[in-house]
Amino acid sequence: MEEFKKIGLKQSFVDAKEKVTGAAKYLDDISFPDLLIGKILRSPYPHARIVSIDTSAAEALPGVKAVITSKDCPNIKFGMEIADVDMLAVDKVRYVGDEVAAVAAENDEIAQEAIKLIKVEYEQLPVVDDPIKALESGSPLIHDGMKDNIAREYHVARGNVEEDFAACDYVFEKEFSTHRVSGLYLEPFGAVAKWETNGRLTVWTGLQSAFQGRNEIAKALGIKPSQVTVKAPFIGGGFGAKIWIRNFHPIAAVLAKKTGRPVKILLTRDEEQLTTRPRIAPRMKLKLGMMKDGTLVCKQATIIADNGPYSWAAPKVLLNLSIRTDCLYRYKSSKCDSYLVYTNLIPTSGFRGYGNSQMHFAVESFIDECCRKVGLDPVEVRLKNCVHKGDLTLHGWNIKSCGLSECIKVAAEKIKENRLPVEEQNGRIKRGIGVACMNHVSGNRGGEKFDGSSAMIRIHEDGGIFIFSGESDLGQGARTVFAQIAAEKLGVPIDDITVMPLDTDVCPFGMGTYSSRVTTVAGKAVFLACEKVLEQVLDLAAEMCQRQRDTMYMDEGFVKCSRDPSILMSLKEVAAKAIRTKAGVPLTAYVTYDPPTVGADKNFYGDYSSAYTYGAHGVEVEVDTVTGRVKVLRVIAVHDVGKVINELGLHGQITGGVAQGIGWCLYENMLFKKGVPATNGLHGYTFMTIKDMPAVEGIPIETNDPIGPYGAKGVGEPTLIPTAPAIANAIEDACGVRMRDLPITPEKMYWALHPQEKGN
Amino acid sequence: MEEFKKIGLKQSFVDAKEKVTGAAKYLDDISFPDLLIGKILRSPYPHARIVSIDTSAAEALPGVKAVITSKDCPNIKFGMEIADVDMLAVDKVRYVGDEVAAVAAENDEIAQEAIKLIKVEYEQLPVVDDPIKALESGSPLIHDGMKDNIAREYHVARGNVEEDFAACDYVFEKEFSTHRVSGLYLEPFGAVAKWETNGRLTVWTGLQSAFQGRNEIAKALGIKPSQVTVKAPFIGGGFGAKIWIRNFHPIAAVLAKKTGRPVKILLTRDEEQLTTRPRIAPRMKLKLGMMKDGTLVCKQATIIADNGPYSWAAPKVLLNLSIRTDCLYRYKSSKCDSYLVYTNLIPTSGFRGYGNSQMHFAVESFIDECCRKVGLDPVEVRLKNCVHKGDLTLHGWNIKSCGLSECIKVAAEKIKENRLPVEEQNGRIKRGIGVACMNHVSGNRGGEKFDGSSAMIRIHEDGGIFIFSGESDLGQGARTVFAQIAAEKLGVPIDDITVMPLDTDVCPFGMGTYSSRVTTVAGKAVFLACEKVLEQVLDLAAEMCQRQRDTMYMDEGFVKCSRDPSILMSLKEVAAKAIRTKAGVPLTAYVTYDPPTVGADKNFYGDYSSAYTYGAHGVEVEVDTVTGRVKVLRVIAVHDVGKVINELGLHGQITGGVAQGIGWCLYENMLFKKGVPATNGLHGYTFMTIKDMPAVEGIPIETNDPIGPYGAKGVGEPTLIPTAPAIANAIEDACGVRMRDLPITPEKMYWALHPQEKGN
Repeated sequence: MEEFKKIGLKQSFVDAKEKVTGAAKYLDDISFPDLLIGKILRSPYPHARIVSIDTSAAEALPGVKAVITSKDCPNIKFGMEIADVDMLAVDKVRYVGDEVAAVAAENDEIAQEAIKLIKVEYEQLPVVDDPIKALESGSPLIHDGMKDNIAREYHVARGNVEEDFAACDYVFEKEFSTHRVSGLYLEPFGAVAKWETNGRLTVWTGLQSAFQGRNEIAKALGIKPSQVTVKAPFIGGGFGAKIWIRNFHPIAAVLAKKTGRPVKILLTRDEEQLTTRPRIAPRMKLKLGMMKDGTLVCKQATIIADNGPYSWAAPKVLLNLSIRTDCLYRYKSSKCDSYLVYTNLIPTSGFRGYGNSQMHFAVESFIDECCRKVGLDPVEVRLKNCVHKGDLTLHGWNIKSCGLSECIKVAAEKIKENRLPVEEQNGRIKRGIGVACMNHVSGNRGGEKFDGSSAMIRIHEDGGIFIFSGESDLGQGARTVFAQIAAEKLGVPIDDITVMPLDTDVCPFGMGTYSSRVTTVAGKAVFLACEKVLEQVLDLAAEMCQRQRDTMYMDEGFVKCSRDPSILMSLKEVAAKAIRTKAGVPLTAYVTYDPPTVGADKNFYGDYSSAYTYGAHGVEVEVDTVTGRVKVLRVIAVHDVGKVINELGLHGQITGGVAQGIGWCLYENMLFKKGVPATNGLHGYTFMTIKDMPAVEGIPIETNDPIGPYGAKGVGEPTLIPTAPAIANAIEDACGVRMRDLPITPEKMYWALHPQEKGN
Repeated sequence: MEEFKKIGLKQSFVDAKEKVTGAAKYLDDISFPDLLIGKILRSPYPHARIVSIDTSAAEALPGVKAVITSKDCPNIKFGMEIADVDMLAVDKVRYVGDEVAAVAAENDEIAQEAIKLIKVEYEQLPVVDDPIKALESGSPLIHDGMKDNIAREYHVARGNVEEDFAACDYVFEKEFSTHRVSGLYLEPFGAVAKWETNGRLTVWTGLQSAFQGRNEIAKALGIKPSQVTVKAPFIGGGFGAKIWIRNFHPIAAVLAKKTGRPVKILLTRDEEQLTTRPRIAPRMKLKLGMMKDGTLVCKQATIIADNGPYSWAAPKVLLNLSIRTDCLYRYKSSKCDSYLVYTNLIPTSGFRGYGNSQMHFAVESFIDECCRKVGLDPVEVRLKNCVHKGDLTLHGWNIKSCGLSECIKVAAEKIKENRLPVEEQNGRIKRGIGVACMNHVSGNRGGEKFDGSSAMIRIHEDGGIFIFSGESDLGQGARTVFAQIAAEKLGVPIDDITVMPLDTDVCPFGMGTYSSRVTTVAGKAVFLACEKVLEQVLDLAAEMCQRQRDTMYMDEGFVKCSRDPSILMSLKEVAAKAIRTKAGVPLTAYVTYDPPTVGADKNFYGDYSSAYTYGAHGVEVEVDTVTGRVKVLRVIAVHDVGKVINELGLHGQITGGVAQGIGWCLYENMLFKKGVPATNGLHGYTFMTIKDMPAVEGIPIETNDPIGPYGAKGVGEPTLIPTAPAIANAIEDACGVRMRDLPITPEKMYWALHPQEKGN
């Protein structure tokens, strides 16, 4: 087995010092002497017609440099999957927070004051705050001129579920539902827009997908993508809500154009909470067919998901939600019918797990419930049915590495090990354990679209190494992973490597940070670019020292010869020769890598991910049967990561994913009253704090994926996915109650534990 | 002959609009909210020992953030050829303007006030203001511990001049001298230094050689070159004085480090004039051997050149000065002994022509003078002796293209055409014509060093094309030339091309803008990178439209097929396919090009330039024999440019070069009194204004160099080189007076015309 010097270490993040000292520059640190502050006037109503807007008082306020409404914006609808978004509301507002007008002023106070001075006359419209009602005929239409409120629907069938259900020993049916939660990243989203003197636009913003964001900003403004530069400062988290632009991106550009000065729009925490991109909230009717021996035969799902009024990533998220879990087990057939429905609640989008988390909650809860009902061991049933390396799944995945069964086994064993014996539990507090597993992707090719990444490696004449990648580091540690991969491949100290800031003008094209693709796909591009530049170094070094090329290698920044220990040349020496002499070797390599996947066809069948990831969580909970309060005591998080690149980063991902999974399952919920948000800001929104955080033991399983760099697969999203169903399973284990509607609040638990009282 | 669509046009500069509207950002436009202003305390004495420095009063001034002296700087000597420069004076000052201390303050006024509050006690030392005296034994040493004041000496001999002189029909000897002049670029030099949060240093500055400057800044600070980023804003001229860093570059970095804030140092015009890098001022003893038929046989030169107290580029300049003109004619032998001497006058360096202009003045004046003396036609003698294509010169130049004889002929004929007949000249005002020719280089390989350039071309998914080059555009139009070459090669409209700003982190390595190398060498790199990326485009396009690859070509942004007029695909269509689909073609090409030259050996013999350039100026002057005033009436400037890329840019270079040549010859002079500058600022320094600017007719000769892009050679420096000797020759033609000491002021002319009066 290969020995690694940089891979698998506990590597401090390459930007850790900047972060902990406060030196790191985030968006709010981007400034210019002539910077203006932009603010947005937002709709107070979930659904209303705009009768008139009077901006005269705002315009008259000293220090106000521009006030804009939809009349000042290009007449272009934009959006990721469906172009249903206006930069500023045209005629109608569709949720509380919808962008109505914007100002640019000398400072924040004036901008806020100006916003208050804009007079808008609204005519309120009936509110659609429930997707089921939105589907009823006669429901008010969110978008005028559409025939119904359906934004997207999917109907996917593999095999013949009708026949298979008929042949099953058991058929179970239940409905599950999950809810909107906020990403709660530390840094609210924002942008600084500045028109350059050559007519180009620079936008500083913490997008997860800088290139796709660049294109979308250009589209909204009606200009060419290459006229826009997106530069990423440090980014304080995103979790999916920063994949796509928001309205404020082009709004800042329009304000900057109108004023001839750079404009910063940074959302306040309240605005962020109001307009973030929460998980889409589905109701999932599940039907599961099983044989007496525990063989899972078929699965059927009917899903109605709440899109909010604008689509963003939700159509894609719904597809994952609809079918991805079908590849977790060896089903014979599956069928799903799913609908994404417009409402007047906050628009939803992708969020860590990208739909996969919602259906995992349903399926992994339901399998557990069904097994318990018929006396089967849920863990055994999972192991009996789970996919393995070499499988071709129902939807066409070609499983090239798979640690699923090992993850399940380890999670199940480890969570049993230290559990409090049932006999020691006294009356009120019940303890239980639960296990749930998951699958996910490392990259996701959309049809014939590119799913790769590019990397450029440049060695300077002093041996300093720069990595250019078009993928964002939101804090997950991509920069460190790139540096480790390069240090390993090149044989240099990690300190010799600088991962350059993301700038779409100079960094090579990348699709962005989503689908847990960065380590696998972009890391592979870095790996290959290093391989290419290393060739240049060793070719020249062999010539310089007159030794055979195949005996040359790099080690800790020095070129050595395997057959002659007297050879010791620093990379600096070789680089200076390459760049500063007639040799003229650029020591620069540019590689575009696209994984050998085929993309899904029109029926969503295909091997569309570079690598598939697996994991299982074992959870121990305690339930206060009097108050209904659930507390997670321990989490064993076992993840098939292919190969650990940075153990420190991996455990960060695991701890963060588990925390966010618990928060989603037990604490967080974006609530509305007749379409009006009832859980505003951080004061009005419940989330888990450190005191409720359980001990988390993260256990990596290394399956050495044949494609990922050094065998690595993505782990960004997987760590959250099985937590919620594992908790629900542990709750049933503790107190016999099955919770099918997230979040599992003490109130819901109370009524579930005391159903008889509900009658009163 | 190939037809061009973009090459040879009168192409408006790609950045013309930004410049004429004032939108273009020059160094002074670079700002940050926390920017500090740096100012430098300079020596008022040409030579003095520093007894003490008291910075306490300056430090106590409110708004002052740092005061530094040499004690705050790394103990590192730096410099281009000779490390004889301290960032701030250590113990001694060596010229008026030498850097003694520096401050950083909240604004310019406070910084200036603080400078005044620094108390320095000096002990004045004897001043060395003449290189001849500096060579005398017992002369004060400029640098303590050195054995004499010689900074560099060259002794180059080809053939046997002693034998050859002995065999000559005529042997002539005279001394010529030229003087210090200022570059007078519109924008004074400066820098903004900012330490980034990751410990790296960014320096915004208008260096001609960004990469070499980066390395020198790093050297002065004792850090690695790749820890420094040099970014170039728009640059308002340089003419050689901005090739290298000045002390203020590392000073700004030290001030920024000490204060933790960005620091801007922008020289005032007075400071710029005091510390610019003027031409080195040589005394040139020439000996010329000629046969009766006008055959030039041999040449000998003894040169003593004034270096000033610090060396910068002067050692290299002296080498060019010493031998480059030997390659203009087919001499049998040559010999030179040259000395670069330290003095206490302002340090000299490279300036448009890089030494070649000084010796051209001497040689091209002297040949004319000698020919007239023995009744030969100077033009005929030039034509008889000048080099031709295919020649291997005395110093090893391999002449691959040469329009020298044509340049001489055209200049001589054209200047005769409209001259005022001699018989019409009345007594006081005399008119005359003169011709002089020149050679120069397009690039200059120093020994085994790299003399090439790299370019990266990137096509974005919308068909937008970015060019990255590491070479500076000082205003000469390099960006436009690159865009034209790319537009021609790629077959796209020039508006689709953006030449990216110079940034050493992202732009590929380039040696810099000097030696008239940018069009030839960097232009060739751009050409080759376009060729490479075009391959990617056409390969994919052929596949997309299922046509034979060799029938595909690009025309005005569309891919077409020579055998099928129905094929019409926009570059955007192909680019989107390349970048956004599984094809995964990066549409990015990176090329390092180093011309096929060998570099000079230890004896300075070698074919070190990509291409050699030639030209001749014909000049008509009028001399007021009463006042001694000389006025240039007309200039015919004929230049072998290989191939015209941008006719507009070419004529800009010609007009500018001629103007600077006239200024050097007749008007400008940096004078000193006992080492103290006597021609300060713009008020104290005489220069030519528009009213003295003659009509200039620029005539390009196209010799289609086999190496340069589309046959082009450099023309930046050549345009100035023959102007001064052509004027001197025209003066002798007008009034029989031979002027051998520049500048040819009315006073000198007066005494030359009226030598009898001098006796009084």
